[in-house]
Amino acid sequence: MLKTRAEAFAPASIANLGVGFDILGLALDGAGDVVEAEWRDDGQIVIAEIRGDEGKLSHDPQKNIVGIAAQALLGQLHSKRGVTLRLKKGLPLSSGLGGSAASAVAAVMAVNGLLEKPLAREDLLAAALEGEAAVSGYHADNVAPSLFGGIILANGITIDRIHRLPVPSDLHLALVTPNVEVPTAQARAVLPSTVPLRQLVRQTGAVADLVDAIHCGDVVRMARAMEADEVIEPARAHLMPYIDEVRHEAKLNGALALVIGGAGPTLCAVCQRWDIAESVALAMRRVYDRHGLACQMRHTTVSAQGAQLLTTHL
Amino acid sequence: MLKTRAEAFAPASIANLGVGFDILGLALDGAGDVVEAEWRDDGQIVIAEIRGDEGKLSHDPQKNIVGIAAQALLGQLHSKRGVTLRLKKGLPLSSGLGGSAASAVAAVMAVNGLLEKPLAREDLLAAALEGEAAVSGYHADNVAPSLFGGIILANGITIDRIHRLPVPSDLHLALVTPNVEVPTAQARAVLPSTVPLRQLVRQTGAVADLVDAIHCGDVVRMARAMEADEVIEPARAHLMPYIDEVRHEAKLNGALALVIGGAGPTLCAVCQRWDIAESVALAMRRVYDRHGLACQMRHTTVSAQGAQLLTTHL
Repeated sequence: MLKTRAEAFAPASIANLGVGFDILGLALDGAGDVVEAEWRDDGQIVIAEIRGDEGKLSHDPQKNIVGIAAQALLGQLHSKRGVTLRLKKGLPLSSGLGGSAASAVAAVMAVNGLLEKPLAREDLLAAALEGEAAVSGYHADNVAPSLFGGIILANGITIDRIHRLPVPSDLHLALVTPNVEVPTAQARAVLPSTVPLRQLVRQTGAVADLVDAIHCGDVVRMARAMEADEVIEPARAHLMPYIDEVRHEAKLNGALALVIGGAGPTLCAVCQRWDIAESVALAMRRVYDRHGLACQMRHTTVSAQGAQLLTTHL
Repeated sequence: MLKTRAEAFAPASIANLGVGFDILGLALDGAGDVVEAEWRDDGQIVIAEIRGDEGKLSHDPQKNIVGIAAQALLGQLHSKRGVTLRLKKGLPLSSGLGGSAASAVAAVMAVNGLLEKPLAREDLLAAALEGEAAVSGYHADNVAPSLFGGIILANGITIDRIHRLPVPSDLHLALVTPNVEVPTAQARAVLPSTVPLRQLVRQTGAVADLVDAIHCGDVVRMARAMEADEVIEPARAHLMPYIDEVRHEAKLNGALALVIGGAGPTLCAVCQRWDIAESVALAMRRVYDRHGLACQMRHTTVSAQGAQLLTTHL
């Protein structure tokens, strides 16, 4: 029997992990977006409600990620039915926390929850990517972690190119999101169009080191490898207010490395213990406080689960 | 009590593994170089004999890899003693099989075998690199596999930058070395000096895939990732005679991928079974036979052991 209403949660995620630009990402425990989907008989996709976006997101289902993702999934199923969608943003917009990916993933998970025979999680990837693509282009480095959980190697946008890496048990993260906008397009525009061959070697070396360290559960080496990026973060750092100060304070308080979350402005410090991550998060916030810049902070670990169906109603 | 004479073997190795240019290498079971070292009281380094080089290598200890490596190790030990060295080349010169690295490693292993208190293997790396550097510059992607065995991530030339990856149990290699010279300097000169950012992303993605596949013991994925190199091998392929034909024949006979060994001209096919590797090696040789080009072929696996002390004499 068809359910009439389903609600799903998809977690925040951190893409890039420094040196893993456009290929690595991880899901964060805690915050995320929630989408509720309800069948409607008129075949329309309707976005009935958006909360937590400060009125910034479009309710047009052709323009809003959740509408596009839901439409893509229904199209994939050759369904003629429509859905009413309600989006609760738990993540700030353009923050580097994978908010658009979380919305897209929550939308497809919710619509999938309505189905008599729900698809396997793997089969939801393409539709979620359609939603994400409307904002950020076809990248799976936020969508795949948000959907599947864990640390993800997304070496393409099809399921055979996506691999889940093991999660080191003592990996803790401290995050701050200052209240500034860093549009993804701008963060991409500042990147070099070419890199010297020597940097390619060092960058591939650092990525290899990172993946090996993840498999070995070696957070210290992982952190060092993440921060070894010589191409992306140096080009973007000037877009991130007070990043040097934040990195300095984070390390003084025990962080092993600090990287930009996605295209920023979220900064993500890698720590080995929960209590260290907590004090690092506080120390990072104090930097912004000193400069009179509002920010959100959190300390968390990797979400092993990824997106979850919360409730369904018959 | 000091030994008077020691003999050591160091295996061939394949550097790069396609996409892992300058950072990955593996040791090969079977062929390699042998160095015999004998104390001498006059403080001199003397290369008394070289076999298997067709007379091409210098006997000058300042110019020959084994002399330089032995000198580096004695210098590291602040020893005033000299050694007589005898080198038996089991590997062709400039072949892409890590012959110079094997010579350097065998030399330091042999001299180390003379010591009352031999150094740990890790402490021999620097001296072996000194020898290798005389020919190829400071790269550890042949020296480290030859010294330690296994599949090595050499993300630098110090021991803390060198990591051993697990060896997939069903990894078999078919190798052909055509009788042409491809000097390493030429093979480096044809490389692009810069690469587009997009290629950097694909290259880092492929390297990450390769390291993950190695950890997962997935030879099929490993092979695909190795061959995904878009930067190095395409630029060098024209230096490798009949490479397209060899690749075609290798795959027809069951090989999963074909990469250039180091700077070539050795070509290395990745296979999943011993018998497949054998027939692939034969098929590859037939290509050179057809074109009247002499070649050596072998099929083998990864050497887990690395260099070995063969004998010592009191």
